[in-house]
Amino acid sequence: MTNAVEVRITDPEDETKELVGTVPIGETLLDAAIAAGADILATCGRRGRCRSCRVKIISGDVPPATLQDRVQLGIEDVQEQFRLSCQTRVIAPCSIMLAPPRTESGHQILTGSNEEGIGDLAISSGVEKTYIEASAPMDEHIQTTDLGEILAKLPSETETDTSLNVMRQIPNVLRDASGRMTVTTFNNRITHLETGDTTEHMYGMAFDIGTTSIVGTLVDLTTGEELAAVGNVNPQAVYGGDLMSRIAYAQFDLKKLATLRGEALNAVNGFIEEACEIAEISSEHIYKLVVVGNTCMHHIFLGIDTSHVGLAPYAPAVSGAIELPASELPLKRAPNAVVCLLPIIAGFVGADTTAAILATKIHESDVTRCLVDIGTNGEVVMGSKDKLMACSAPAGPALEGGQIHQGMRAAVGAIEKVQIDDDMHVQTIGNAKPIGICGSGLIDAISAMMDAGLVDGAGRLRHKDHEDLPKKLAARFVTDGKARHIVLALAEETGVNEDIILTQMDIRQLQLAKGAIYAGILMLQHVMEVPDENLDELYVCGGFGNYISMESAIKIRLIPGLPPERVSYFGNAALLGAQMALLSEEERTSAEEIVHTVEHVALATHPTFQEIFVDACNLAEIDLKAERKRDRQAARA
Amino acid sequence: MTNAVEVRITDPEDETKELVGTVPIGETLLDAAIAAGADILATCGRRGRCRSCRVKIISGDVPPATLQDRVQLGIEDVQEQFRLSCQTRVIAPCSIMLAPPRTESGHQILTGSNEEGIGDLAISSGVEKTYIEASAPMDEHIQTTDLGEILAKLPSETETDTSLNVMRQIPNVLRDASGRMTVTTFNNRITHLETGDTTEHMYGMAFDIGTTSIVGTLVDLTTGEELAAVGNVNPQAVYGGDLMSRIAYAQFDLKKLATLRGEALNAVNGFIEEACEIAEISSEHIYKLVVVGNTCMHHIFLGIDTSHVGLAPYAPAVSGAIELPASELPLKRAPNAVVCLLPIIAGFVGADTTAAILATKIHESDVTRCLVDIGTNGEVVMGSKDKLMACSAPAGPALEGGQIHQGMRAAVGAIEKVQIDDDMHVQTIGNAKPIGICGSGLIDAISAMMDAGLVDGAGRLRHKDHEDLPKKLAARFVTDGKARHIVLALAEETGVNEDIILTQMDIRQLQLAKGAIYAGILMLQHVMEVPDENLDELYVCGGFGNYISMESAIKIRLIPGLPPERVSYFGNAALLGAQMALLSEEERTSAEEIVHTVEHVALATHPTFQEIFVDACNLAEIDLKAERKRDRQAARA
Repeated sequence: MTNAVEVRITDPEDETKELVGTVPIGETLLDAAIAAGADILATCGRRGRCRSCRVKIISGDVPPATLQDRVQLGIEDVQEQFRLSCQTRVIAPCSIMLAPPRTESGHQILTGSNEEGIGDLAISSGVEKTYIEASAPMDEHIQTTDLGEILAKLPSETETDTSLNVMRQIPNVLRDASGRMTVTTFNNRITHLETGDTTEHMYGMAFDIGTTSIVGTLVDLTTGEELAAVGNVNPQAVYGGDLMSRIAYAQFDLKKLATLRGEALNAVNGFIEEACEIAEISSEHIYKLVVVGNTCMHHIFLGIDTSHVGLAPYAPAVSGAIELPASELPLKRAPNAVVCLLPIIAGFVGADTTAAILATKIHESDVTRCLVDIGTNGEVVMGSKDKLMACSAPAGPALEGGQIHQGMRAAVGAIEKVQIDDDMHVQTIGNAKPIGICGSGLIDAISAMMDAGLVDGAGRLRHKDHEDLPKKLAARFVTDGKARHIVLALAEETGVNEDIILTQMDIRQLQLAKGAIYAGILMLQHVMEVPDENLDELYVCGGFGNYISMESAIKIRLIPGLPPERVSYFGNAALLGAQMALLSEEERTSAEEIVHTVEHVALATHPTFQEIFVDACNLAEIDLKAERKRDRQAARA
Repeated sequence: MTNAVEVRITDPEDETKELVGTVPIGETLLDAAIAAGADILATCGRRGRCRSCRVKIISGDVPPATLQDRVQLGIEDVQEQFRLSCQTRVIAPCSIMLAPPRTESGHQILTGSNEEGIGDLAISSGVEKTYIEASAPMDEHIQTTDLGEILAKLPSETETDTSLNVMRQIPNVLRDASGRMTVTTFNNRITHLETGDTTEHMYGMAFDIGTTSIVGTLVDLTTGEELAAVGNVNPQAVYGGDLMSRIAYAQFDLKKLATLRGEALNAVNGFIEEACEIAEISSEHIYKLVVVGNTCMHHIFLGIDTSHVGLAPYAPAVSGAIELPASELPLKRAPNAVVCLLPIIAGFVGADTTAAILATKIHESDVTRCLVDIGTNGEVVMGSKDKLMACSAPAGPALEGGQIHQGMRAAVGAIEKVQIDDDMHVQTIGNAKPIGICGSGLIDAISAMMDAGLVDGAGRLRHKDHEDLPKKLAARFVTDGKARHIVLALAEETGVNEDIILTQMDIRQLQLAKGAIYAGILMLQHVMEVPDENLDELYVCGGFGNYISMESAIKIRLIPGLPPERVSYFGNAALLGAQMALLSEEERTSAEEIVHTVEHVALATHPTFQEIFVDACNLAEIDLKAERKRDRQAARA
């Protein structure tokens, strides 16, 4: 069991006793507790629908919270490292405490109204299914209509007008099965009719369409349960890796725009199909889709020309919340769904950021918080319930493993941790043989190399003699022509039969990427006059997969050097926000309010940006005077 | 000039002077007045946009009023035989009076708000075009959107959400021609964007989709001017002539339903194209379509299964007012239009009847009036502003020339009048050589034959020796095997080189058709307890073309024997009502109110219907006792 890890388990009832459960990476904390023989309950059958199996992570890596964690435990508890053990997958050795007492401050953000009295917000997706027994009109004198007979059995607030698709269903559904049918409404408008009682099947999906990846989740709209998670590379990527090259591809060419749109629609249709297969449900029962994405992805998805989104002042064509039938897009795999797109904040601060704000709730915060959403385009939002400011940081794909010599997405085989002693040791996702390096691995590798003196604060790979280094480590430096690189994993250890290397150019790419993000944070701190000590909490969100070391992120100056307890990794906040809007129309309405309160700061045209950016690209704070002095001394020598 | 007719013209200023203008049939009364050298004005240039050329028809056939007559003169004046001479085509010799004084009771039903102070209702189609000069967003810091910049130039009541199609237009229209553009809204929602100033081009179309024919008009939504009239046989007719056979064709077969729907959509698309060619406008500038039709045509047009509309109790699937984008149907020839379907009253009392009520305004009448809409399916509506009742009379196509041996639509060459002295004389539409007989001709022929004793009250063609008849007339009776018929036009006089005949079977078909209509009228009189003397006015509407002799209609008992001044021909009231809803959202809203006030009377299941129907099929009131006595005497002889 090479990829097994130990989970230490304490019980607050008897703190002297410590159990240890050993499970393979990827199994749940619940599995570990059971393996250890701990006294743990899973009342709902591991479905994330109750709180009986909750634990607190005392030490070790804390995996990002799932939607279920947030629904059942509330955001405050989640931030204090409480998790549902049935939902949390073990990623590294850790210590947990069983069923700990809830803190006073804990509150729910979303909960099923059928759950036992917890939470202050009910699930209210806007979708309702009602089983009725209606009959076809019988009397020729007092003429009613088929629709009239159906409406008579529904709540009076049901709207009398409906879509052409529903009208076409009416005559036959009313007469099949003697009028026994299920009527689905969205915000009181009939969206679907079906023979028989299908009230148990009410699903929705949330999608985050990113420049690099598209991810989605299938959710039960009655219980809030997540039934499937799907996702993959955005197939548009072959037409340009970053936003600007994607826009350039289709600029002033509506045919190419249609190509990009087709790729996105096909992908989403495919994900819907895949999610339904995983959950073994019919896609006919998906009634609501919430889609977020940056402005460019949003516009392409709708078929709106992005030519001008790519030109100053980068204004979106439209920014408001959008609601339309899936058939209009068309998303054929969800024929009965209403598609809701969350509103956009600005050209480069899109609906994904709106969703991330919703998820992190910084718009409700009493203290100043900061949300850093790291993607091909990074966004930074800072503020509190009084004021929010946002900016966009064009990081490029390096932090997601793109434009890195052997970069890859955070998938099995990706190097995600690097340790250096007398040699270099890598840890990969799934403990598989390394096949490349992902964004979080890159951050960890460079942080470790800084500690070991293999790279300096300006990002230069060590280029003097390596005699002072341990032999194995020294051997890892290779010069190929003029380019230098360091070997992270030797060919014989890898899954690709070649050395996995990190080049000087890779380090430069990472510096530009992290420099853009860090400059965005510094700029908002500057504009809002928030020194580090006043920044109460910083959430790092984005597509790093399961794990990013905050210590390493601080080390390389991706984020400010805040104390560890004030920094946390939030996972895919955009997708989580989309899920919240999926489960709650109140949250979806909040999103519309949020966008009006966020002030956009345009980085590139800001007078002090260049200066801040140049500094932010360094891996360590550099004393320029001392640096120049060293350079002069070196020249003299 | 064989088809020329005389128009006698008097001037109220000098009643002693009578002028005579001779013009070909089809020219306008204005042409006749000018030919006669009368002192007449046509201030608006013959466009029906002013009242300067108005005349009153003193004697002779009164052509049905056009929409312009109603807009400019008001319904009361129109009923008193006032017409705009520029809009009224001469169909027979007549006498007119120039610019007569308006009666006190005259009022307008609709008028352009740009007309000089007449009328109490303004044109308010809901469509508005606004020329604006907007600019693309300029500032990266204070980010607006393309749509935001456009909305800033529009009235504040403009809705901020719009369709996907409009969203897709936004970026490029805003940047072409430096933001000079025309925005079209329908009820304050943006429906179209265009470069430049196109505010002059704002059109709509009204359609009546009948079982036998589809007719439509193209109207200028600014002025109310009718720019083109189009129409032809409903191409669905090849799948069944009457409603029931049309329904039977597609019953429980959605593929065949799609075939019927495709025929209707193609036809309407074709008519839109044709009308735009006639008027030399772009179909992009059609923004509103109002469609009426019976329930079956309505459902087929929308793609709603009509299987159950054809089965007792003949309930519609839906009946409310419908509003949807043309692209959803799809009607590709009017890409920017909103399609409005007026509401339905009952299974066989459709949106066409709703429109006819709107046009005749019997829902606003103080006295009891009756509207008889004659089509393949006839509808009768009776009542006043206090109460309205409606029934459907399955006439079949005979009154439109269908299922008649040599029947035809009311087109050039159709016999429309028959006179009998010592021979038979026919008059055709357009004074062309006869090629068949239309519905109104059939009514006129049978009426004349009754007067001449050629057909009896039971509808039997004279079958004794014809020695008492003038020789030429006697020669027109022909017996072909067992079937008897009468020759209306001899082969050498016709345009088809064969005798045009009227068969005993034709007379029977007419009897069944007119019997159904008359029974409907009698039934409503019975149920509402309205004797003839209390029936203040009866409007005959429908597809007879230009002319139906009310005298003949009364003679054959198609309608009750009211005094001539209480009966009038109203033309295509359904189309007129659709035009009114096209020009006025207030009228369209009225239609929704009307349907809730009309009580439906189901004829076929009414206990006394059979008795009434059998009587109503006779051409004359028959004293059954005397009849039986005659029969017995004949048997003894």
